Amino acid sequence: RNVCFEKTPQGIRLYNLYNHWGMLLVTYFFIILDLALAVFEDPALIPLPLWATFLAELICLAVFTGRLVHFAKVIPWQKFWKDTKNICVVLIILLTLVDMLIYGSMKAFGYYGVRWSRVLRPLFLVNITEGRQVRRAFRSIRNTLPEILYVFLLFIFSILIFSLMALKLFGKRKLVTNEGTPYFTSYLDIVFELYVLVTTANSPDVMMPAYNSSFFFALFFILYILINTYIFMYVFLAVVYNNYRKHLKEEMKNLVRAKRHKMVEAFRILQVKHGGEPVVCQSHWNQLVRLVQPDISNSHRELLWSVCDEDKKGFIGKVAFLQLADLLNIQIITLKSHIHPLQTWFPHLYNSHPSRLVCQMVQHKAFVYVYDFIIVVNAVFIGLDEENPLISNAEWAFLVLYMLEILLKLYTYDPRSFFSRHKFWNWFDTIIIIAALVATTVNFALKSSDGYTSRQVLDIVFILRVLRLIRIVDSVKRFRTIINTLIKIGPTIITFGQLIIVVYYIFAVVGMEIFKDKIKFFAPDSTASAQNYCGNPLLKDTAFAQNNYCRNNFNDIVSSFVLLLELTVVNQWHACALLTSGFTTVTHTAARIFFVLFHIVVVIIIMNILVAFILEAFFVEYTLAKSDLQTSVEKKIQELE
Amino acid sequence: RNVCFEKTPQGIRLYNLYNHWGMLLVTYFFIILDLALAVFEDPALIPLPLWATFLAELICLAVFTGRLVHFAKVIPWQKFWKDTKNICVVLIILLTLVDMLIYGSMKAFGYYGVRWSRVLRPLFLVNITEGRQVRRAFRSIRNTLPEILYVFLLFIFSILIFSLMALKLFGKRKLVTNEGTPYFTSYLDIVFELYVLVTTANSPDVMMPAYNSSFFFALFFILYILINTYIFMYVFLAVVYNNYRKHLKEEMKNLVRAKRHKMVEAFRILQVKHGGEPVVCQSHWNQLVRLVQPDISNSHRELLWSVCDEDKKGFIGKVAFLQLADLLNIQIITLKSHIHPLQTWFPHLYNSHPSRLVCQMVQHKAFVYVYDFIIVVNAVFIGLDEENPLISNAEWAFLVLYMLEILLKLYTYDPRSFFSRHKFWNWFDTIIIIAALVATTVNFALKSSDGYTSRQVLDIVFILRVLRLIRIVDSVKRFRTIINTLIKIGPTIITFGQLIIVVYYIFAVVGMEIFKDKIKFFAPDSTASAQNYCGNPLLKDTAFAQNNYCRNNFNDIVSSFVLLLELTVVNQWHACALLTSGFTTVTHTAARIFFVLFHIVVVIIIMNILVAFILEAFFVEYTLAKSDLQTSVEKKIQELE
Repeated sequence: RNVCFEKTPQGIRLYNLYNHWGMLLVTYFFIILDLALAVFEDPALIPLPLWATFLAELICLAVFTGRLVHFAKVIPWQKFWKDTKNICVVLIILLTLVDMLIYGSMKAFGYYGVRWSRVLRPLFLVNITEGRQVRRAFRSIRNTLPEILYVFLLFIFSILIFSLMALKLFGKRKLVTNEGTPYFTSYLDIVFELYVLVTTANSPDVMMPAYNSSFFFALFFILYILINTYIFMYVFLAVVYNNYRKHLKEEMKNLVRAKRHKMVEAFRILQVKHGGEPVVCQSHWNQLVRLVQPDISNSHRELLWSVCDEDKKGFIGKVAFLQLADLLNIQIITLKSHIHPLQTWFPHLYNSHPSRLVCQMVQHKAFVYVYDFIIVVNAVFIGLDEENPLISNAEWAFLVLYMLEILLKLYTYDPRSFFSRHKFWNWFDTIIIIAALVATTVNFALKSSDGYTSRQVLDIVFILRVLRLIRIVDSVKRFRTIINTLIKIGPTIITFGQLIIVVYYIFAVVGMEIFKDKIKFFAPDSTASAQNYCGNPLLKDTAFAQNNYCRNNFNDIVSSFVLLLELTVVNQWHACALLTSGFTTVTHTAARIFFVLFHIVVVIIIMNILVAFILEAFFVEYTLAKSDLQTSVEKKIQELE
Repeated sequence: RNVCFEKTPQGIRLYNLYNHWGMLLVTYFFIILDLALAVFEDPALIPLPLWATFLAELICLAVFTGRLVHFAKVIPWQKFWKDTKNICVVLIILLTLVDMLIYGSMKAFGYYGVRWSRVLRPLFLVNITEGRQVRRAFRSIRNTLPEILYVFLLFIFSILIFSLMALKLFGKRKLVTNEGTPYFTSYLDIVFELYVLVTTANSPDVMMPAYNSSFFFALFFILYILINTYIFMYVFLAVVYNNYRKHLKEEMKNLVRAKRHKMVEAFRILQVKHGGEPVVCQSHWNQLVRLVQPDISNSHRELLWSVCDEDKKGFIGKVAFLQLADLLNIQIITLKSHIHPLQTWFPHLYNSHPSRLVCQMVQHKAFVYVYDFIIVVNAVFIGLDEENPLISNAEWAFLVLYMLEILLKLYTYDPRSFFSRHKFWNWFDTIIIIAALVATTVNFALKSSDGYTSRQVLDIVFILRVLRLIRIVDSVKRFRTIINTLIKIGPTIITFGQLIIVVYYIFAVVGMEIFKDKIKFFAPDSTASAQNYCGNPLLKDTAFAQNNYCRNNFNDIVSSFVLLLELTVVNQWHACALLTSGFTTVTHTAARIFFVLFHIVVVIIIMNILVAFILEAFFVEYTLAKSDLQTSVEKKIQELE
């Protein structure tokens, strides 16, 4: 880790405390709490009084300040103030305090206030010491911006030119849209319509009037879609992806250089002279390894040493020492062939003939096929109507069968290796089956006690039942490799998830300030007449209200997130255009700016980053060759066997 | 070119004739004619009698047969039958003849016949000798299929599991959609709806009933979109792209190997012994170069020779000889500083002081800025209402200004270099301005003669006026580089265009057979009552008819192509789902299969190939380093200067 800290005993103790997992957990907890405050603040999903949210926020801020002071004690003073992320955190805390003061006093005197500092909250997620990956992603976006900007300007220019052409071609033809409004007569409207066409949301509606009037006008729109939707959007992808790769490579190079530098430093400290050249002897090396990775096994450590010290001289030179960090990163799965506990407890019984037969049966391929078949049958049963008593009783049979499978496997294989860390599917199976058993029992108990079935419990039962079917994927080898690749993408997706939460949160907070309570949602069984126009007379008879979109609103943070996700899935900007039109109707046409900005930031930049992430991860998975070090470790292992 | 031909004088003459550009032109003309026949055949855009289309098709087939016989004469007999593409062409011709015979006789006896062989027509485009690139693309798709298949199966499995879950969760809740039909009660309908959700077309409509009933159900859809729309779709992209790169690399390797093999062969023929080692002397080399590229200039040839023969020995060895093909591929732009013709004709006048001043003025940067400003002003004028006499007269002023610019430039720079092949923008400017001048004059003449303005002429005038504005892009350097990259992608796009035409044509022909005349389009001013339901009572009161989509039909080849393009731009599957629903209403629910198949082929496979094309082209442009040969040529040029 790239942190300089003072090399006094006290400094090291502070540093270790700072990096303690408990401290990290507490920090993340308070960050999430801080972000979650939006649920309780006005406009709230669950309203809480102002003093409660203020108190919670103050506690969060205190924790962040404490963490920052701790960090300041760990690293030298001038280093602390050179780091942008620390300055950011200090600024955010100060601004938040100022905002709380202003808002509090405004409220106290009955004025209307805006909690603008809420926009800054997600930045805590980026600027804490552990947000390294997210910061790297943001840095990569920032570095991509100049290049994107020029392509974007060209893209906008192309839209403007096409709009001008559309105005000249269609403006005077007195065409009408399907709604009866004049078609393509105002330049700004055309620009917006054509921008939406890039997201292909309003196609073919936008071209139908022109297409109906003449065949040749379809050419105009085809050309437009070709150039702006396909070519330009893919050029955006190419630019983002290319820059992402370039910057990633540079960052990696820097990291490797820093690591090398530190290892050289460590070598300088540990070195002893031996025959004129500096070396590190085995005892020092052992001490170091034990310090860095306390949970490493002795045999593992000796294996690594024998890789470094090939000639068994008892000491290693600089080159071999520098490998240490990479060596420690190689995961070695210790496949201990444990003896089954039953064998130690009841050796006679476990080794008897029938017991052996059972084990052989379980290990046989047919066992897997039989259970695959059972899963398929189960799927059919799930598809059938569960009101039928035969079906609902069959469920018990399936549960018993699945339990039996797990027990048989536990009997055959050692429980410790069955539940080892890398056996994802075993864990998955067991948890799902036990949960299903519990849920089904609860459901049955509820039903037989008062004849009433709880929908929530039933939902859980159903979900668990269906999830059980996923297991079949594990039986096909090709599927397994795809799934494994997907699982390996996991960490990247988490980084990306933080990225998107930051962006969503900011847009959600701004959106809530602008659009809150403009559109109201009424429960489907409500009888209020306002239900037909989402509680806003301006929406009377609009497509927004007719499509029953009232729930898509900015009235609380959860609704906002769902709405923004709908907007991200641009493709139905048809709906989105509808959504946008709904919001512009209740406020002002300028509200379009908010939605266009969201589209640019999220779809053009962020989503392309996601594509770059996934493409890169896949290519790495596909082309991953074993490194030299890995091969030499493997060679050693084979020698030892 | 990878063609083996007999090495007799007659064989070479035949081979040269076969590759003559005139012959290629004729072949392509007849292929396009053959494809265009669909415009005139039933269901026709412009109906022609059956004998006319049959005659045209027979002529096309005769031409293709002739071409094939010619090819068979060029290459050895057994080679000819080993080549799949020749066998394909023979088969297609035979099948087409059989089909024509059957269809003709069916028609003659008044039966209903299907011209099924029309599906095969686009394959001519793939299987002619020159369709190398398209064949390569198809081969790459074929090689990608197995890998895609497994991901696709997993994807379908995921949809099935989610559908089952949806059925269990929502089936019993008695929810209703916005149209009042029961929500998510039939398994197959759910599968279809969720498949459409992958294209994100029916979101958020498909989730609104569930979302309205509870917040938590939104989670189900969010998870679904995340997994199936994002992860799986990008995995498809990654798999296609990865395989495309892999196969491209292999094909390139093979090509390079074949080229090397041929050059070694050529060396073997031309070699003479010199001091024990085989060499090629300059005269032979010169002969060869002149034969291969007759239009190469002497100085260019000598430059290349001096690169090969660095030590000026008068002969070159094998290694230097093998470079020849690469050397000839390096484009060298001869920048001859021609003397301006006016200077040779009127030297006194052209060299006079005022004339010099004009030249300096034109070459000054400010000249460019002034014209950029004029273009911006022009854009504003175009945006204004052209009914105003001031504006329409200003148009003449602008035309004069633009003409003046071109004339001034021609006066300053030599016309031959101004119109040289690489000056794209000069050509563009001149053509646009002269066309605009002609069109505006015609328009003015028409108007003043009988006071009547032709809409068509006016359209052309408008388009030309707007196109003039594009010129401003050339003034910004960063834009110019982007545009240049885009222009370089051109050839790849043409290959891709052929690919997509083949696929579209097949789907269009099949679609026409299934859906022709089911949906009728009436001109907007028609008063037929059938207009409200597209001439099909089944469509009465459906969203398809209400949205005025009647023109989206399969009644002729052009409409089919437009419709398929609309379907390709999946994003508005909202509309697309509407389109699909329209077609299923008039036929049968099974028609959905046609549309889903189209989506899989075009969007999942073909469009991802396009992305791969563009990404790869961009990366190549960005990372293109000059090859060794290019540097050595450049060094020589500098030495010579």
